[in-house]
Order: sequence, then structure tokens, then C-alpha cells
Amino acid sequence: MPAADGKLRLGLFVQGVGHHLSAWEHPSVDPADLFRLEHYQRIAQTAERAKFDMIFFADNVGLLAGLHPLAERTALVYHFEPLTLLGALIPATERIGLVATVSSTYLAPYHAARKFASLDNLSGGRAGWNLVTSGTDAEARNFGLHEQLGHAQRYDRAAEYVEVVRKLWDSFADDAILLDQQAQRFFDTSKVRPVAHQGRYFEVAGPAQWARSVQGHPVLVQAGSSADGQALAAATADVVFTAQQLRPDAIAFAQGLKDQAEAHGRRRDDLLVMPGITAYVAPTEAEARERYEELQELVDPKVGVGLLSAMIGWDLSGADLDGPLPEAPRTEGWQSRQQLFADIARADNLSVRQLVGRITAARGHWVVVGSATQVADQIEDWFRAGAADGFNVLPPTFPGGLEDFADLVIPELQRRGLFRTEYEGRTLRDHLGLARPTVQRAPGAQPLTATG
Amino acid sequence: MPAADGKLRLGLFVQGVGHHLSAWEHPSVDPADLFRLEHYQRIAQTAERAKFDMIFFADNVGLLAGLHPLAERTALVYHFEPLTLLGALIPATERIGLVATVSSTYLAPYHAARKFASLDNLSGGRAGWNLVTSGTDAEARNFGLHEQLGHAQRYDRAAEYVEVVRKLWDSFADDAILLDQQAQRFFDTSKVRPVAHQGRYFEVAGPAQWARSVQGHPVLVQAGSSADGQALAAATADVVFTAQQLRPDAIAFAQGLKDQAEAHGRRRDDLLVMPGITAYVAPTEAEARERYEELQELVDPKVGVGLLSAMIGWDLSGADLDGPLPEAPRTEGWQSRQQLFADIARADNLSVRQLVGRITAARGHWVVVGSATQVADQIEDWFRAGAADGFNVLPPTFPGGLEDFADLVIPELQRRGLFRTEYEGRTLRDHLGLARPTVQRAPGAQPLTATG
Repeated sequence: MPAADGKLRLGLFVQGVGHHLSAWEHPSVDPADLFRLEHYQRIAQTAERAKFDMIFFADNVGLLAGLHPLAERTALVYHFEPLTLLGALIPATERIGLVATVSSTYLAPYHAARKFASLDNLSGGRAGWNLVTSGTDAEARNFGLHEQLGHAQRYDRAAEYVEVVRKLWDSFADDAILLDQQAQRFFDTSKVRPVAHQGRYFEVAGPAQWARSVQGHPVLVQAGSSADGQALAAATADVVFTAQQLRPDAIAFAQGLKDQAEAHGRRRDDLLVMPGITAYVAPTEAEARERYEELQELVDPKVGVGLLSAMIGWDLSGADLDGPLPEAPRTEGWQSRQQLFADIARADNLSVRQLVGRITAARGHWVVVGSATQVADQIEDWFRAGAADGFNVLPPTFPGGLEDFADLVIPELQRRGLFRTEYEGRTLRDHLGLARPTVQRAPGAQPLTATG
Repeated sequence: MPAADGKLRLGLFVQGVGHHLSAWEHPSVDPADLFRLEHYQRIAQTAERAKFDMIFFADNVGLLAGLHPLAERTALVYHFEPLTLLGALIPATERIGLVATVSSTYLAPYHAARKFASLDNLSGGRAGWNLVTSGTDAEARNFGLHEQLGHAQRYDRAAEYVEVVRKLWDSFADDAILLDQQAQRFFDTSKVRPVAHQGRYFEVAGPAQWARSVQGHPVLVQAGSSADGQALAAATADVVFTAQQLRPDAIAFAQGLKDQAEAHGRRRDDLLVMPGITAYVAPTEAEARERYEELQELVDPKVGVGLLSAMIGWDLSGADLDGPLPEAPRTEGWQSRQQLFADIARADNLSVRQLVGRITAARGHWVVVGSATQVADQIEDWFRAGAADGFNVLPPTFPGGLEDFADLVIPELQRRGLFRTEYEGRTLRDHLGLARPTVQRAPGAQPLTATG
């Protein structure tokens, strides 16, 4: 079910030196790149040259690697605070969207609203916000809590959080800034409304202290695929990232989510569904397979089990590597990811070792190995089948894996008319085909009056 | 009392299109610059060309202009979130320090620690944090509070906040990151310590999720000059910005603060005192005075009274413009600034109108008008008298007022041997002559052990 222009959307999911668990150990990779601004500047510029819609940074707020005993051997750490990093990438790029993750659980909504409005205004309308609710006790303990909030409560709270943030984004009308030196009017207070939000979780007076941003609302991305996550996304998200390994499941997920969006009075195209894809691509299928195997051979099964344990939130280090996946205890963590792994293991009758092999390559995302034609065939198939409006691309290594995708897969998609050859617009909303929201205000909202 | 190298330190206080209240209305200024990244890039590059130690952005988290009835006519708004803005200035500069303001009252210490560690690592060791405690109810109401915390409590809380942030900054040893591909060790968990902080205000488990930063501790700046503010600064700050109008008061303040620092076992040079200075400078004194008068003539006294009201936290709009300053009610706001204005008005027997005239030029900071020689004479006099280790420079307009200072005053200071002609080091600590802190850990702190 292609969008109106028949083109698919592509996000680049940036992560350190690669998404493969052992990427940092591969001889083609310099692990010190993870700490270098120049590395991320190069990635952003490569992605812009390839005309990606956006680059995207995941995030959490704790050292999650501490969860398993082989933490030393993984590079799965979000070292930089993503907004400061994205700020530094603005001057290196001109068109590409800049999407960062901020959790609604540990930061006041006023700060989140301001960060993304700033990024949007500084970048000329290229900002996106990936809203997560955080899913680990390790993070909760960095913020004065002994354990995380319950799953349902996190999402209930997130819905109100989005409401507050959007009220702040709308508190200055688009024409509130005058800059009229003759009339000595810098801005027009009658075009500014307080927020005056009083809800179940938040009380925020407002108004904002910033001019309305270039996109009006920075693009709202979400990745929660649980029932709670889907409900929030259907009501509020512009883009949904998701991990899907099986084509029929991906179709059911995408269409089901659009059905839910319609139930909220939204159009199906207002919500873009973008599954993750890791492509091991090379000029020939044999070379692509070789790249895949090279990385897989670097993985120590114990480290893989550690990763799996961290991802599903309980300790599998005692499990039989060649036995089936034990039954998962229900937790307050990342429910949809737990379900995905259980489904994969059951569908393909996988041992723990085999499941680990699937996960080390891309942490549960869809893995495609082949030539440019083969990879493009898979992408086109999912796209035309209504499984995806586009994809979030997770290169196995950076910068090499990204360059392979940019140099081999993108031109093939362009030849097929499936992907842009030039940016048509200037903002991330332009790239994604999303309208710029007008200012929404409650009927009773009063102008800001001077208090003397 | 010059520092060991006999040189003074200079910070550039960046604010929109200028520090003069009517800067945005001056024909030499384009008020739209306030919203342009290119404007701030140009300022940062001019400051680096002039060899300033650092550029500094103030901040608050509310639309404070709403406090007085003539908000429309002022441009005193902190539009951009400062860390995102400073991130965007990293690539435009190579050496100059980058200092942003973050309030300890409305952001979890984990976030503050991470932001400044990120800025420090992304910039190669150029980050500084100006810690404020926030002083207005308008800000409190954006964060679920009906009024701000009490003054003493804000500072008590800030002291613990600094402690938590520094524990996080020290949780990774400098040599914790290994990147050893052969041994398959990304980092050394034995070199990482949890924070395990349990205090009166904060509970933070840690450890950090980032490598220890280039400077170890980003430079800590403070500007609170009340008794509570001085006590915190004497114990913890590397740099203190202050508003001083009178030479003897400035000497007493600087030396008194260093006395207090010594009482904490610190050296006098470990705490740099930098008063604010606004210079109206031109090739001749007459031209300088003309620039000053041009800006002052743009000020409507009503707007000036509004600014004064906002700064001291109570409404003076009904006061007699030609009468004396009414007695100030004691508030929980910015106490030191209230006291400063009362002292100035009393010392010089000023009417409200005259006091407003002093404040519109630089919001209470020291104002010097004259030729480069005259301005340098004043700076040298305060510096040699022990009133200052350097100055925080507040140009009346941007970029013009900064360029005047860079082109006229800096070369004169350099000729006198009072200011560097090249950066000697790479980090902000290098510029300021401050040592890099070693990792400090409580004797009982245990290594991070894997939890299985």
C-alpha cells in the first residue's frame, strides 16, 4: 500500500559502530569511532547523499549492559545525550531529518517540548522526536525510583505527556513574532496563549518561551508495539518504528495500526509504519553471505545469551543453549519485544542458541542477506504488500554497512521508481508527506494577559 | 591579584541581539538574528578569533517577560534550549569554551551530568556548566509547582545536586574504555563504580552510561552572589560570574569569596571571579558616548520600569518615576540582584528613572563608556586591584558591539600583556588555568559487579 507518491520512506537508525552485536570487533571497524563526532558527521552526510528521509538515534538513560555478566564485551551503550549530538550534526547537513529519542518517564514535558522546538528551529524544520516510555529498572534507579512504573501507567502518562507537549508547541501562534522596530513591538502577546494544563499527571502553566517551530509540531515517532503502545501511536504518532520478522505479521501490524488510526478520525496515510531492516548486501549474494558469517563468527554464544537476557528482561544464562526458550515471566518491561522473540522461537522451533543467532545480527529486526537486487526485491515486496510505508535501516556496521546500502540498494530502489533521487521539500514533514499542523487551541483558552 | 600567568580571563556572555534592553530596536541590528543559527555561529567565531576563554549562554525555563505589562517590547527571551544550541556551535569552533546554563531545580541530576559530559566529549573538552537554581514562580509553574522552592532550600538542594553530578562524572575511571578487539573487551567493568547516592533530595544508583569526559569535570560556573550562593560557590564552583558596579564592593566580594574557598581547603586560584562588564567602546570617547546615548534614547521609561520590576520581582509600575526606589519586600527570588539595585540607588541617591537608566544598559552589570584605552584602563585597574580574575563581557549589541570589543579592546589588552594572543591549550580548563580533577571515590565504593 504505497503512499500517494508511490515512494517509500527510509530512516537510518544510527548506533555507534553498528547494529551487529560484534560490529565493534570487526577488522573493518574502528571502535573508537563510537566516541568521535566526525564519525557521526560522516554518517549523516552519507545518509543525506543517499536521500534518506531521516537519521534516528535510539536512547536510554542507564548503563543497561550492567544487566548481564558479559557487559564488557558489548558496545551497546548510548554514550552521547542525543539532542546535543543532533545539534552538532545540524551544520553538517542541509535537508535530512534529525530524530532523537526522549523518554516521557524521566524528563518534564516542558523540557521535552523545548528541546525539540529548538532542534526544529535550529535545523530549519528537520526535527523528530521518538517518544519512548523506558522499560528497565536500571533506568528508574537513576531517577529516584526503586523500580519502573507499570507498563499501562507509563503509556497512560505518555498520552497526557504528548498532549502537554503539543499544547506548548501551539502556545505561540505562527505570526506571534513581529520584530517591528518602528512600532517597538518584538512580539504580539495577543497571539500567545498560556497552556494552563491540569491533568492527572501534569500541571503546566506555560506559555512556551520560544517561537512556534518551523514544522509546527516536530514529527512524532513511536516504537511501542504492545497493545498499549499501539493505542498511543494510533492516537498520536506520525511514524511508527517496529520490529517485524514475518511478512504476514508485518502486514497485520501495519494495517491494524492504520485501522486504529482511522478509528481516531485520522487518515491511513497520516501514520507511517516503518519496520526495521538489516541488510547484509554486497555485489553478489555469496559476498553478502560472507559478510554476514564473518560477523556472526565473532559472537561468543555466552555474550549472545547475555544480550538476549537483557532484551527480554530476565536471566537466561543458566538455560540450556540447545534447548527451547523457557517460558517468559510477565514483566513490566518491553512487552512487545518479549512477545516477538517468543513468537519467532515457536514459529521456527528454535533453540536458545539459534534464537541468539537471529538476535545478534540486528536485535530482533528483520535480516536480509543478498545482492542489491535481492534486497530491493524483499523491500519492494513488503512495501507493495502493505507491510510497510518504508523502512528503518539498521546497518550491521558503520560506516561500511551504511555505505554498502547507500551505494548498492538505494540506486536499485531509485531505478525502480521506489525512492526519491532528490529531496522535494525542506522539512522532515515534507519528506514524509505529512501536513504541517495548524495551531489547535481549546475554545476557552484566553490570551496571555500582562499581570502588571 | 592576577593569576599565576599574569593574564586575565574573558568570557563572552551571548544574548540574542544584545544586552541593552533596546538593542533589538537599533538600526544596526537585525532582530531576526535572534532566531538564526548563523548569527550564533558568527558570534562564536568572532569570540574565538579574539581568543576569549569561553562563550556563555544564560537560561531560564519560562516566559519571564510575562511578568510585566510591556512584554511585547522586550526581546529578553531564551528561545533555544542551550545545550542543543551549543552542540550546533561545536563544529564552527575549535578551541573556545562552551558554557550553558542548567537549573538544578527542574532537571534530574542524571540528565544534567550526561548533558555536560556529552558536550565535553563532543567538543574535545570545552564544556562548562553554569548552575543556577531558578528564581521565579513563572518557571515553577511550568513544572507542576505553584510557587518556587524557598531560597535556602534551593541552594541546599543544589549542593547535593553538584555532589551527585560529580559522582556520575567519576563513575567511569579514565582508563575504563579498552576497545580491545583481540581480547574482545570493549570496556573494563572493574574500572566502573556505581554511584549509589542516597541523600536528602536525591537517590541515584548509577553508574554513568558514558566514558569519563575529556576534562574529567566540565567547568562549573555559578552566579549566585547571595550568602547562600556564595557558600555554594566557595565549596564547589570553578568560576563565579557576578554583577558588581562599585570597585571596592567588587574587591570585597572577590577576596571574600576566595577567603571562603580557602576555608574549604581550596587554593585562591581555584576559584575565578569574573564580574560582568558592558563596554560601549569606539575609536574616540565621544563616539563611544554617542553609541551609548543612541541606545538609551530608544528606551521607553515604562518598559525600563517593567524590566526593573521583572528583575527585582515586584511591580514598580505604580511607583513615582522621579521618586526614590520604594523599600523592597523580601522575596524568595533573586536576592543578590535585589540588594545590588537597592545599594546602587542608595549610594548614588538615584530616582527610579535614574536607576532604570543604569539597568537598561546592562541589567545591573558594570558599564564602561570610552575609547579602547579608557576601557582597558578600567579593566586593568580592577584586575590589578584584586576585584577580578577576569571579566564576563556583555556587548550592548550583537554582532556589532562584540566586534567593537574584539577589534578595539582586545588588542589593547594584548599590547599590555594582560591577555593571550594564542590559545595555549585545548580545553576550557587549560584556558582558565584549572587542573583536571582526578577521579574521587568514597572509600567504601565497590566495583560494578555483574548481576547475572
